[in-house]
Amino acid sequence: MNKLSVVGSSVIRKDALDKVCGKTRFSADIKIPGMLHVKVLRSKVAHGILKSIDISKAVTLPGVCTVLTAKDVPGTNSHGIILKDEPVLVNDKIRKIGDPLAIVAAETEKIASQALALIEIQIEALPVVSDPLEAMKSDSPTVHGESNILGQRKIRKGNIEEAFQKADIIVEKEYHTQTQEHAYIEPEAGVSYMDGDVVVIKVSTQNTHFDAREVARNLNLPVNRVRIIQAPTGGGFGGKLDVAVQNWLGLVTLHTGLPARMVYSREESIICSGKRHATTIRYKTAADQSGKLLGVKIEAFCDTGAYSSYGPAPVTRLAVHGTGPYEVPNVEIDAYTIYTNNPTAGAFRGFGVPQVTFACEQQLDMIAEIVGISPIDIRMMNTLKKDSLTATGQVIESITGIGEPLQAAYQKAKASIDQLKANETKTKKRGYGMGCMFYGTGNTGQPNPAGAFIDFLDDGTVNLMVGAADMGQGSSTVLAQIAAEELGVHFEDVKVTAADTGVTPDGGASSASRQTYISGNAVLKAAQTVKKLLLEEASIVFAVPADTIIFKDRHAHVSNEDTSAQSINVTELIRNCRRKGIMTIGHGSYNPNTIELDDETGVGCPYETYAFGSQIVEIEVDIETGEIEVLKIYAAHDVGQAVNPLQVDAQIEGACIQGLGYAIYEEIKKEQGKITTPSFSTYLIPTAMDMPEIHSIIVEEPSGNGPFGVKGLGETALVPTAAAIANALYDAIGIRLYSLPLTPEKVLEALQEKSI
Amino acid sequence: MNKLSVVGSSVIRKDALDKVCGKTRFSADIKIPGMLHVKVLRSKVAHGILKSIDISKAVTLPGVCTVLTAKDVPGTNSHGIILKDEPVLVNDKIRKIGDPLAIVAAETEKIASQALALIEIQIEALPVVSDPLEAMKSDSPTVHGESNILGQRKIRKGNIEEAFQKADIIVEKEYHTQTQEHAYIEPEAGVSYMDGDVVVIKVSTQNTHFDAREVARNLNLPVNRVRIIQAPTGGGFGGKLDVAVQNWLGLVTLHTGLPARMVYSREESIICSGKRHATTIRYKTAADQSGKLLGVKIEAFCDTGAYSSYGPAPVTRLAVHGTGPYEVPNVEIDAYTIYTNNPTAGAFRGFGVPQVTFACEQQLDMIAEIVGISPIDIRMMNTLKKDSLTATGQVIESITGIGEPLQAAYQKAKASIDQLKANETKTKKRGYGMGCMFYGTGNTGQPNPAGAFIDFLDDGTVNLMVGAADMGQGSSTVLAQIAAEELGVHFEDVKVTAADTGVTPDGGASSASRQTYISGNAVLKAAQTVKKLLLEEASIVFAVPADTIIFKDRHAHVSNEDTSAQSINVTELIRNCRRKGIMTIGHGSYNPNTIELDDETGVGCPYETYAFGSQIVEIEVDIETGEIEVLKIYAAHDVGQAVNPLQVDAQIEGACIQGLGYAIYEEIKKEQGKITTPSFSTYLIPTAMDMPEIHSIIVEEPSGNGPFGVKGLGETALVPTAAAIANALYDAIGIRLYSLPLTPEKVLEALQEKSI
Repeated sequence: MNKLSVVGSSVIRKDALDKVCGKTRFSADIKIPGMLHVKVLRSKVAHGILKSIDISKAVTLPGVCTVLTAKDVPGTNSHGIILKDEPVLVNDKIRKIGDPLAIVAAETEKIASQALALIEIQIEALPVVSDPLEAMKSDSPTVHGESNILGQRKIRKGNIEEAFQKADIIVEKEYHTQTQEHAYIEPEAGVSYMDGDVVVIKVSTQNTHFDAREVARNLNLPVNRVRIIQAPTGGGFGGKLDVAVQNWLGLVTLHTGLPARMVYSREESIICSGKRHATTIRYKTAADQSGKLLGVKIEAFCDTGAYSSYGPAPVTRLAVHGTGPYEVPNVEIDAYTIYTNNPTAGAFRGFGVPQVTFACEQQLDMIAEIVGISPIDIRMMNTLKKDSLTATGQVIESITGIGEPLQAAYQKAKASIDQLKANETKTKKRGYGMGCMFYGTGNTGQPNPAGAFIDFLDDGTVNLMVGAADMGQGSSTVLAQIAAEELGVHFEDVKVTAADTGVTPDGGASSASRQTYISGNAVLKAAQTVKKLLLEEASIVFAVPADTIIFKDRHAHVSNEDTSAQSINVTELIRNCRRKGIMTIGHGSYNPNTIELDDETGVGCPYETYAFGSQIVEIEVDIETGEIEVLKIYAAHDVGQAVNPLQVDAQIEGACIQGLGYAIYEEIKKEQGKITTPSFSTYLIPTAMDMPEIHSIIVEEPSGNGPFGVKGLGETALVPTAAAIANALYDAIGIRLYSLPLTPEKVLEALQEKSI
Repeated sequence: MNKLSVVGSSVIRKDALDKVCGKTRFSADIKIPGMLHVKVLRSKVAHGILKSIDISKAVTLPGVCTVLTAKDVPGTNSHGIILKDEPVLVNDKIRKIGDPLAIVAAETEKIASQALALIEIQIEALPVVSDPLEAMKSDSPTVHGESNILGQRKIRKGNIEEAFQKADIIVEKEYHTQTQEHAYIEPEAGVSYMDGDVVVIKVSTQNTHFDAREVARNLNLPVNRVRIIQAPTGGGFGGKLDVAVQNWLGLVTLHTGLPARMVYSREESIICSGKRHATTIRYKTAADQSGKLLGVKIEAFCDTGAYSSYGPAPVTRLAVHGTGPYEVPNVEIDAYTIYTNNPTAGAFRGFGVPQVTFACEQQLDMIAEIVGISPIDIRMMNTLKKDSLTATGQVIESITGIGEPLQAAYQKAKASIDQLKANETKTKKRGYGMGCMFYGTGNTGQPNPAGAFIDFLDDGTVNLMVGAADMGQGSSTVLAQIAAEELGVHFEDVKVTAADTGVTPDGGASSASRQTYISGNAVLKAAQTVKKLLLEEASIVFAVPADTIIFKDRHAHVSNEDTSAQSINVTELIRNCRRKGIMTIGHGSYNPNTIELDDETGVGCPYETYAFGSQIVEIEVDIETGEIEVLKIYAAHDVGQAVNPLQVDAQIEGACIQGLGYAIYEEIKKEQGKITTPSFSTYLIPTAMDMPEIHSIIVEEPSGNGPFGVKGLGETALVPTAAAIANALYDAIGIRLYSLPLTPEKVLEALQEKSI
């Protein structure tokens, strides 16, 4: 096989220098002459009926251009990723604090704020539903319709009752995971303007094409009269998959014809954006006396808050990945998506899997302890591997499953682990733990194609048009690398235009770790279309069959000869094409081959490929304060093929630190639907000082269908971190916590209980 | 065949309302905060050596940002459409008045002008070459290299000497045609700025992709680091095929990192832009006693001025169309492109053909008079028609040639012509005349492909990306119609993004009447790619073969049934595709099948199709003043298929009035290379008051390969107007003029000579 030259190389992303130099102009930095400033009047009530709204005083305030309410929405007054259950502007029912009641567009932000205060509203309060388990009861007040149960994902495999009857060991625990905030560095923001009859919105987003469809529905416009262009985006992590400012900006610009700008405050961002689902997970595991898993039964209760957002998808993912990366012959999983009046939960890096992994991986350690084998042995014994059947009945293609990552992480960690206890003090105890994971690449059993257009220009440079939004994860870089590799040019030869619904094809969401795999395949196919034309030309030039020619370093070579002897610059081949009037352009698209899950059994083929990974963490616990310090993380992840090893390292490091925050710091606290931690002084995220030594270890077992063997990576390294830390906590001080985050208070309380 | 529904309909172009309301923002209207204003120091000398240039005073003038000279051009300091013979900034030799010596970028236009005056230059004058026939002589000073003869296009068919020996009638005359100015309503203008590492230039242009390649060469950048976006363009007519402001804007922005703006004054535009070639044409025709043409011998001398621009191409076209739309068995044509120190001549609507048609059509009338047959009869007798051989040996596909247009024009004009003389007065004489033409669609025997990307969106609307620049001729409208027709949607469903080198494929120049035909075919192919996917879905839905299904009015129908019974909305078919993960995107390209002309004989296949047309004009001549008033023009043109009849009418009307101006008003006068008519007070163009009654008559004989049968139209109706007016002049007062324009002075002088 031809050795790769651009794929696999740590080229420097093109946006790096501008970002580190502060030159990048994010949405909030864009100034358009005459633009209006838009603010939203938001409900302070979590559940109620909007009885009246009087904008008469607000609209007459000097400097106010317009005040819009539900009646001003020309199209469908609803939006949502999976269900359209969220109003653009509340017409009748308020379902959460922060629900939008009216928008003001004014000459300055200050005037807009003043006008908000002049809007008079009357709300009839309703009882607040804030506990998801209470919400499931038939006598609970409902948030939408007749039941708060939005969905139930069932997975059935084998005979779970029999498994528990036959089991030597049964471990059953209830786990609780908290609501997590994405805490992206850039809050929601955008600008809008008319370009002829097209409403253009430049916005911080993860999915321009979805946004365009939503805004078009809300504005009652054809989709191609709404153009969403992704502005440089300061992080998303799933939270910018929901529309935020988009439809309000569209409304203002459509109503006034004027440009507009809207920027969330940090508090608004925390209160109003979707979050990671808080869950209650009842996890029951059956094993034989050797530690071999016989059965897993899970009940998971996931609080989606007031609106569904991406909700059902993470809950499905939680269920699909409920057994962890292990072969379990008998499975029964019921995962519920539950409406409450809490803040909406939607997509968040990991999509439900970090929650269930926190449970699954602790269960495994507990069984290993009972059996008397090591955490590694129980994992190696049970791992999914080639031809294993998942809980949904899918046959695994990976040969080793977690085997290779786990061995790699352990080999790297071993020397350090061996020294770990030696460095303990009387009050500072140390331990290590591991967490393993698997994660399906792409949307779960649903079509989720992506497209690409490509233009191989006369001088051998390339224009690549893709829908994939790069919100910092680096998709534009890796997609350029894939195009460059296939066309045999250099990374810097490829210019990517991404995520502009006016000119790029739909790439689907930048979520579910899918873009490198799916848009990557679309790019590959587009490049192959063009390359075929050049291969034909090269075949004529060299008088050899096209399949003996390789493209590399801006040249075509005959593969089985001394390359210097038989080599031609690609620009000459393009020139040959041009002389014949052949355009070197192409399109490509890709959709992974999946089968939708059966509603009753979950049987199906949810993903084309799975990524496997293992993390080993070392921690130190201060038994006087209860504080956990994570010292080191050895994170080994199978990415199939690292397109850009430096970016893979960065993804792993970023995910580990976000997973560390999830494990020990971060928690959105709520009281009756109200967030009591709406700032970074009350909602703590890890800082540079909390950063452990992270050893990222890249494992590459190529997938069958990913471009150059790629598997999804974006989320994977967040998945097992919290579980590994929880297992390390037990190793350090013999305490097992079943509730995230692992706060000093919980540690101290458990220590106290233990000592009693 | 399925009846057309969008193609053939006079939909209103989307840019119309904004243009008539003055809302369109042309290049000169674009304001970018902090932009510099750029001006060019131009030579006042027509021929010389630039000995020194001292910018020291200019560069220190407060408000001046930078002054750049030839040494600041980082790439190749030359540009040009066919030959790169024109400097970006003069390094050594000055070849015409207006040659660029330095550019200034300053905070205001005024400061830039002041700075120009501070630049000190020393020029060593050289003898000026201003007469092309003198320039051909071996002892003439040369403008470039060793000879002023840039090219000679030869066409040889049959045996010309024998034809003249056998001829009953020989008519030989020398014709002179003048230099014509495009006089577009918008002078050259553009703005530039950096977008990351990309130099973006928004500009009034006819060919963004050519511009990008030129600027990239001049700036020494990869082509995809220069992005040319066509700004709304106020006319081109061939004059905006050359780069004007583009490379200077690019230089300033690349050197300073700052946005910049450059707008030509009208005088600058007239002095510096390319024009229609002035020609001397020696035309000798042989015929038998019936009027049947036996031979044509032409020597044409075309003044390309100081630089080649598109020069060789119009001269080739002049030669290829030299015999007019007639079958001539014996042909000898020599057409010379000659350098002088005159203003550059390049592309101008008609590309050399109006010049030779002025000769050819008068020759024909003279022969008809000698033979004693009508102008119509001699034309019908000699017209090219199916299986005729052109002068270059190409077999004609049209069945009737000029027959159908000529008959159509004559039928429409007949009643009026019959009354014409009856309305004469003693001093105002009337007459009618005709001119016929043929015109090959697309570039002459050269590959000239175009591409298109298409995205059929979820709601049945369409994004279409094409390279074709719409400078007012309406290409975006007709390309949208072609896409809509093929996809069975409405015109308003298609949004076109045109002429943006960052995201659209190359469409080639908007010249040579090629875009509807060539980009139209590219769009058709892209649409067919997408439609094929939907046909497959419809075939499944209807359970009938795909080829029995038609798309119309946003629905797919079974063609042989009552459409209401078997009909499905295209959005449902798209939804079906999406459910299967099929992206409804595509690309398409087209290149006409031509054969390059042989250098020695001109044998080849220069175009895939020819458009034919005939015009009959009625004029009134004031024999006291010599003034010609054109009363009516009956213009019948075969467009193959009128995509938009309203636009066809407008093209015909616009071309006729520009042809009328060419015939009787317009003339760029020069003295020793200096234009003495550099304003609209000295260079007269027709006004609304000069507008005759124009009867445009659309003839539709479908071409074999054009989309829906289309042939090129943009230039055709200008071609025969001057010739028809000259013939009408003879009919009115018995005077034949061989020199354009047909000014009152020339008429009076001829009348005087006649009366002597």
